[in-house]
Amino acid sequence: MGVDERRQQLIGVALELFSRRSPDEVSIDEIASAAGISRPLVYHYFPGKLSLYEAALKRASEDLAGRFEEPQEGPLGSRLLRVMRRFFDFVDDHGPGFSALMRGGPAVGSTATNALIDSVRQAAYVQILSHLRVTDPPARLELVVRSWISLAESTALIWLDGRRIPRAELEVQLVHDFAALAAVSAAQDAEMGALLREMLKDEPADGPFNDLVVRLISLAS
Amino acid sequence: MGVDERRQQLIGVALELFSRRSPDEVSIDEIASAAGISRPLVYHYFPGKLSLYEAALKRASEDLAGRFEEPQEGPLGSRLLRVMRRFFDFVDDHGPGFSALMRGGPAVGSTATNALIDSVRQAAYVQILSHLRVTDPPARLELVVRSWISLAESTALIWLDGRRIPRAELEVQLVHDFAALAAVSAAQDAEMGALLREMLKDEPADGPFNDLVVRLISLAS
Repeated sequence: MGVDERRQQLIGVALELFSRRSPDEVSIDEIASAAGISRPLVYHYFPGKLSLYEAALKRASEDLAGRFEEPQEGPLGSRLLRVMRRFFDFVDDHGPGFSALMRGGPAVGSTATNALIDSVRQAAYVQILSHLRVTDPPARLELVVRSWISLAESTALIWLDGRRIPRAELEVQLVHDFAALAAVSAAQDAEMGALLREMLKDEPADGPFNDLVVRLISLAS
Repeated sequence: MGVDERRQQLIGVALELFSRRSPDEVSIDEIASAAGISRPLVYHYFPGKLSLYEAALKRASEDLAGRFEEPQEGPLGSRLLRVMRRFFDFVDDHGPGFSALMRGGPAVGSTATNALIDSVRQAAYVQILSHLRVTDPPARLELVVRSWISLAESTALIWLDGRRIPRAELEVQLVHDFAALAAVSAAQDAEMGALLREMLKDEPADGPFNDLVVRLISLAS
């Protein structure tokens, strides 16, 4: 194998191991053994476990950021639901590593790892704004979108801790939560009200947003 | 001053400095100078900046956890609103230190600091459950309460970044968000529906929960 090919293979093997268990439990020996090479050869490509962890995290970050990309077609609720399904696919595949990373701590909380987490959040934020067709968001819309992204993270982390709620229910719930957070903000602010009406005007009768309204009306009665 | 008195004074001085600027910008020299003692004397009481930071953070954590305590009297919406006011008072007083801590990183992201953050989240969770009069919460209620606490954190962090929205609006918004997240969950699950009806049955016509419903009806029309 060439140098770059070997590096890419090692990153893939490491990402697999760092995803399945907390990264501080994964040793270089284990990575070497899983890659079928010697420990000194691992160090030939990466100076230490941290640099290999950061490379694996960079690949995972690019993967996750890509899952927020969605064609600008069809109603907003269905687009968000497809994004949430891909987000939970990622969380499902990388559970223990995702939990360890998001909970921080010495093994995973470096400046470089925090910058990668922020880059994924920013990519998700830019994607959601593009679907809302807003280029210069008012402060309240920025708050709704960014705090919803953080809600998706915390919902996923709580789900991973025991998986006591079916993930498909939480994917729909997060789409509903987006509409609910936007509606709460719109209830206080006319500009957000106008944005919300624009967002929801193409929603079909059987889409997730109308589904929420129907369920809430039935709950209230 | 006695040993304990001097330690407590140093913790107070350090907390003040760690709150006003990012903790990695605060030096032991500065803490010594603000406390009116010599640098070696600071080291006599605390082996290094990290141990002083952790002691200051412990005091701040106990303070913050205490702000979630609220008498079990009156409607739920008003209780939550008083808690949110005290939460934003805390965030306002400790802005830069709170941001640096919650964003993690090498200066603040140790195992001990993460354990303190978790202890505050747990205290807030237990307090909210006690107001809901639930001792054995179903998984969906746990998710709503814990994810709402995380939403309060992210809302405060976004607010601190420029303070572009009046904090009083966000205090009310977070109370509304609680009702909205509970309603979204209740729309999918009968047990949550029963819990939500019980939560809201004593809400007065001019309380924050009914205020939200009135505003949403006006928005929809």
